[in-house]
Amino acid sequence: MSHPTDPLDPDASSSALDVRLAARRGGFTGHTSGLASEFVQANLAILPAALAADFRRYCALNPQACPLLGVTEPGDATLAALGADLDLRTDVPRYRVWRDGELVDEPTDVTRWWRDDLVAFVIGCSFSFEHALLAEGIPLRHVEQGRNVAMYRTSIATTPAGVFRGPTVVSMRPLTAADAIRAVQITSKLPQVHGAPLHLGDPSRIGIGDIARPDYGDAVDIRDDELPVFWACGVTPQSAIATARPPFCITHAPGHMLVTDLLNRDLIAA
Amino acid sequence: MSHPTDPLDPDASSSALDVRLAARRGGFTGHTSGLASEFVQANLAILPAALAADFRRYCALNPQACPLLGVTEPGDATLAALGADLDLRTDVPRYRVWRDGELVDEPTDVTRWWRDDLVAFVIGCSFSFEHALLAEGIPLRHVEQGRNVAMYRTSIATTPAGVFRGPTVVSMRPLTAADAIRAVQITSKLPQVHGAPLHLGDPSRIGIGDIARPDYGDAVDIRDDELPVFWACGVTPQSAIATARPPFCITHAPGHMLVTDLLNRDLIAA
Repeated sequence: MSHPTDPLDPDASSSALDVRLAARRGGFTGHTSGLASEFVQANLAILPAALAADFRRYCALNPQACPLLGVTEPGDATLAALGADLDLRTDVPRYRVWRDGELVDEPTDVTRWWRDDLVAFVIGCSFSFEHALLAEGIPLRHVEQGRNVAMYRTSIATTPAGVFRGPTVVSMRPLTAADAIRAVQITSKLPQVHGAPLHLGDPSRIGIGDIARPDYGDAVDIRDDELPVFWACGVTPQSAIATARPPFCITHAPGHMLVTDLLNRDLIAA
Repeated sequence: MSHPTDPLDPDASSSALDVRLAARRGGFTGHTSGLASEFVQANLAILPAALAADFRRYCALNPQACPLLGVTEPGDATLAALGADLDLRTDVPRYRVWRDGELVDEPTDVTRWWRDDLVAFVIGCSFSFEHALLAEGIPLRHVEQGRNVAMYRTSIATTPAGVFRGPTVVSMRPLTAADAIRAVQITSKLPQVHGAPLHLGDPSRIGIGDIARPDYGDAVDIRDDELPVFWACGVTPQSAIATARPPFCITHAPGHMLVTDLLNRDLIAA
């Protein structure tokens, strides 16, 4: 693994460490989409220990939406299994800090916000399975069109745990039937990054009223020979946290993910 | 394995050997659907050696429609890998004998038709994957309704080999989206019995004009919350043989399958 002496412009061929070091040193504050493309990127949610047991249970009860890659001990900002040097206070390019559900800061470093009772949850993200789909030659419309993926709140309730509850949020990718079948096969092997689709075909069956108006992200065109295919999405736990309005919370800023040393190819289930 | 001294009425709990012995002794001439349900049932096609190389290549080129479980040496009616005692001249409950594409006999024993140049092809059948789907709690409409599965000629051409060519024939099962996704997962692990679906959703995409009018088998209802899901079907090689009109050929009679000693659970791909 290369070890830059100065902050780099990370690119797809950079290592996870390159991106983390660039973020840690403050030279890189941008989106991580497409960077260090072999490596697993992840959602981050940091909560006070008083809420951590409930949130951990919420993730365990809803593993497709909230696939846990790692959890820290209270106050510990390291997670060696995801990167020997990893520091969760500095290594994400941009964070969001929340008090009682209100956004209070968007820093590039949360060292000054850190507390001894904070527990960090690292949750798998669809970038990994998109990488696997693209590697198998399955085109992704939102990537082709340079848009964010389309996401929708559904009528599929998550299983609640303590204060955490709410709808399953899904991301949608339009695919031909043959590619949808292959996408089921590929993503079924990746349970740590949302796994198989939850639904395909008629959006109204999962409570989506207008496919052209996503609740998050950007609408994309669905061609006549395509079906919309829906996967559980990492916005689900973010939405549950927003609804719970915890007294204090830190998350990554949208698109500014934690880049771990896990390799996408290592996520494939045996 | 039990070993009856008299022809039995085979049932779901009987062994493959029970069914073969009952067929061999002439006491059983019926359909094999639902019998010896743990065991792999198969399609049978017996061709003169002069055509066997082409047909073998046809199967290899179209493995989803024609998954080969075994092939005999010319003139040999045994296939020990599928049953130590197995005799392909006697163990199928009813055969069809063809000359120049015309049906000339429907005997329960083909000993008198046997020739030293005949090569037998044993081809996987959807009974095995239906067994796996039912075991996972996925309901199958045609089973519930006591009908034959609906089958359709499609616009998906098989890859030709010698005189063998023609459309892929598919079987269709209506499933909810969630069950369709699970069915893709389950049948992807069963490549020796047609594997994953070829298509799901809009039938016209694969050249099916009227889903209510199957080319073979019986129509079944498709509910509002279901998608038609299409698998390659063992009628594909039968159709290719019918089109080729070989000078001589023996097949099983529809629904009267060869019951082998392979276990359905042993077909699951590693």
